[in-house]
This record gives sequence, structure tokens and C-alpha cells, in this order.
Amino acid sequence: MVKEFRKADARYPDGMPKVVDHQARRIQVADAVQELITEQGLDRVTVARTASTAGVSVGHVQHYFPTKDEMLLFTHERVVRQILDRVSALGERATRQRLPIRDVVTEGLVEWLPVDPHRRSAHRVTLAFLGRTVDNPQLAQAHAETGRLIRSMLATAVHNGKECGEVPDDTDQDLAALELHSLAEGLALQLGSDPDAATSRTALALVSARVQAVFPGRCRQYE
Amino acid sequence: MVKEFRKADARYPDGMPKVVDHQARRIQVADAVQELITEQGLDRVTVARTASTAGVSVGHVQHYFPTKDEMLLFTHERVVRQILDRVSALGERATRQRLPIRDVVTEGLVEWLPVDPHRRSAHRVTLAFLGRTVDNPQLAQAHAETGRLIRSMLATAVHNGKECGEVPDDTDQDLAALELHSLAEGLALQLGSDPDAATSRTALALVSARVQAVFPGRCRQYE
Repeated sequence: MVKEFRKADARYPDGMPKVVDHQARRIQVADAVQELITEQGLDRVTVARTASTAGVSVGHVQHYFPTKDEMLLFTHERVVRQILDRVSALGERATRQRLPIRDVVTEGLVEWLPVDPHRRSAHRVTLAFLGRTVDNPQLAQAHAETGRLIRSMLATAVHNGKECGEVPDDTDQDLAALELHSLAEGLALQLGSDPDAATSRTALALVSARVQAVFPGRCRQYE
Repeated sequence: MVKEFRKADARYPDGMPKVVDHQARRIQVADAVQELITEQGLDRVTVARTASTAGVSVGHVQHYFPTKDEMLLFTHERVVRQILDRVSALGERATRQRLPIRDVVTEGLVEWLPVDPHRRSAHRVTLAFLGRTVDNPQLAQAHAETGRLIRSMLATAVHNGKECGEVPDDTDQDLAALELHSLAEGLALQLGSDPDAATSRTALALVSARVQAVFPGRCRQYE
């Protein structure tokens, strides 16, 4: 993800690299798109409204995102990236604190559930995007890749759990990953579409119970 | 669902009721909408294309569906209704054949998975519709109601399983319903977005294993 920095030029006397500036301005637009989707739905996202919400000109938005699809794709990738970054941070903290892998997996899955305003906003972006995958092969491809990445992270966690002693040796790691991912994604949909579907506590308990079932053992490394 | 039939009039000398004709014509349009969504995505659904696909006039479509949202809502309800009808038929067959409740629940959940062209088409309609729930409170309401209905059917199955002996008495039927519904919905998304996510056989095995875990016993009624 690290891009090559260009040399400072006259416009950036303090040496602020252009590529970072470019990225910052795209993020500013993406934040406006996320705000619009969260509060008003994807249909209300236009270049004009995005510019107004971001406090920039229409030309500015069009300069950074030549097409609306590029704008949506970037916004979705940013939302997903933020969640994955939080999941990675959980993993690093868990290693430092010598927590069981199941705790990281549980907390990681809960990051996808719309259980607070921040995660609800991210959920609405991914949901709106999900519907558009039916229309747009590029968006569908991006969504499929995200799914594969999440399942691969989960399968790795199950594999590490076997080495560590938390997971029985005969567990099929790909099947376990598919189950946990499907459960979390489906649960996010229930919570997102119907506040009566479950409380946050119930959803957390459900995820926690299934992760516990996959990771029933104790980590030998910590003994 | 049964509407009052009107008396036959001059246009229907054979006594064919108008309301059935009305419903048949709406279904004809909905089938065209489903075909368009399945093959080209929701963005491509216009009144003109729907009319052309259905082989009727634009005025005909507009007569039966004054707004595009009504047309989408009816199409979605029809797809969901078809799945629920198949689930009900499974239940009736199972009672006649004295099958365990878990078999009905498994087959019922599999009805939602895009594992063949017919169910893939239904999945694409529900997926396209799902994304629109972010924009449209009426569609969101309809989606939430469908979810509640499915969870309620599953909770009833678990309840009956307790009475019958297939389910342990201390099982929380609402939690079990939420888990099975979430698993099936999430799994449908994985299969629908990525053909490499799982084979139909794997998906079926996963659903079957979780249902078996909720319904581990034998039905006393059949002994």
C-alpha cells in the first residue's frame, strides 16, 4: 500500500509529497460519500452532493474521481481497509498480551457487525455496495476478493490455532473459515436490516459461541 | 393472500375473475423484471426494457405498476413467496413421510442458496433488492419483515423439535433461529459473489452440520 513519494516541488515547500496529498484529497471525498450513503442512501450520492458535503468544488471531485464508480469503489475499499486495519491491530495487541487466538477471531468478526454508529455507517456502505455487485462486474470482483481475503485470514487463524493447541487437529480450516465468515456476514445483515433481530449482546454471544466451538482448546505457547 | 373474486362481466364470459387476471398480468411483468435483473443487473431494469422483455406495451406495465418501486417490490415479494411456498411444501411432504424436522430445516435453508440456475436467479433478485434497502425505507421494511418471518419459522421448527425430542429442552429457540438464518444468508452471499467460495456440496454439508448440531435427537412421535 506504500506508494513512492515524489520529490518536493514549489507547491510543497515543506516537502509534503504530492502522492500523499492526492490520497488525502481522495479520502476527503470518500468520507463525504460515506456520510451521504449512511444518512441518505446510495441513490442520493451524486458528484454535486458529494462536493457540497466535502466542501469542495464539483471539478475537484471529478479531478480525483473521473467516474462515479471509481468514487464508490474507493469509498468501499477505504471502509473495508479500515476494518481490516482494526482487525490487524487486534492481532498485534493479542500477541503482545498473549491472548488466545479465539479472542482475536471473535473481536475481529464483531468488527463487521453494525453494533455502534461507526460500524453501522461502515455496514451501510458495504450493504449498498453489495447490491451494486449485481450490476457491476468490477464491484462484484472487488467484493469477491474481499471475501476471499477474510476467509483466508480466518483459515490462517484456525491453522495457527491447530499449531498452538486451541483447535483440534482434524478441523477443516477452510470449512471453519467459511462458517465463521458466513455467520458474521449473515448476522450483520440481520442486525443492519432489523433492530429487533437481536441485541448487540446476543449477536456477540452467538459469534463468541461459534468461535469457542472451533477453538475449544488452550494455547500451549502460553503455558 | 386470497383476494375476493369479482363477478364475471362481459369481458369475461367464461367467468374468469378480473382480480386473477390482474394478478396474472402483474406476474408476467415480474417475471420479466426477474429475467432482466438476473441477466443484466438491476440498473438495466427500466419500464421500457421490462415491457419489451415481457412482450407487452409500456402503457401495460405502467397500468399494473404505477411506479418502478412497486414493480421491484412486487418482483421481490414474488421471489420470496416462491421460496417460502417451496419450504412449506417441504414441511408438508416431511409430515406425510414422517421425516425428522432437521431434514426439513436443512432443505428449507438450502432453498435460499444459489446452488442452481433457478435459485441463483432468485438470489440475484434478493441481492439487488438488499442493496436498495439502504436507499428505500419501504424496501427496507419489507426486507426486515421477511427476515422476521424466516426466523419465526425456524424458531417454530426448533420449538417443535423440543416437543418431538429432536432438540434438547434447554436450547434457546430464538438464538438457534438467528444462527441458522444468519449462516444461510451469509453463505448465500459467499456462493453468490464468488464461485470459488465453496462448492454446492460443501455449502450443503455446512448447513447440514449446523442443523444437526441444533437437532441432535430422535423424534419420539415416529417411534
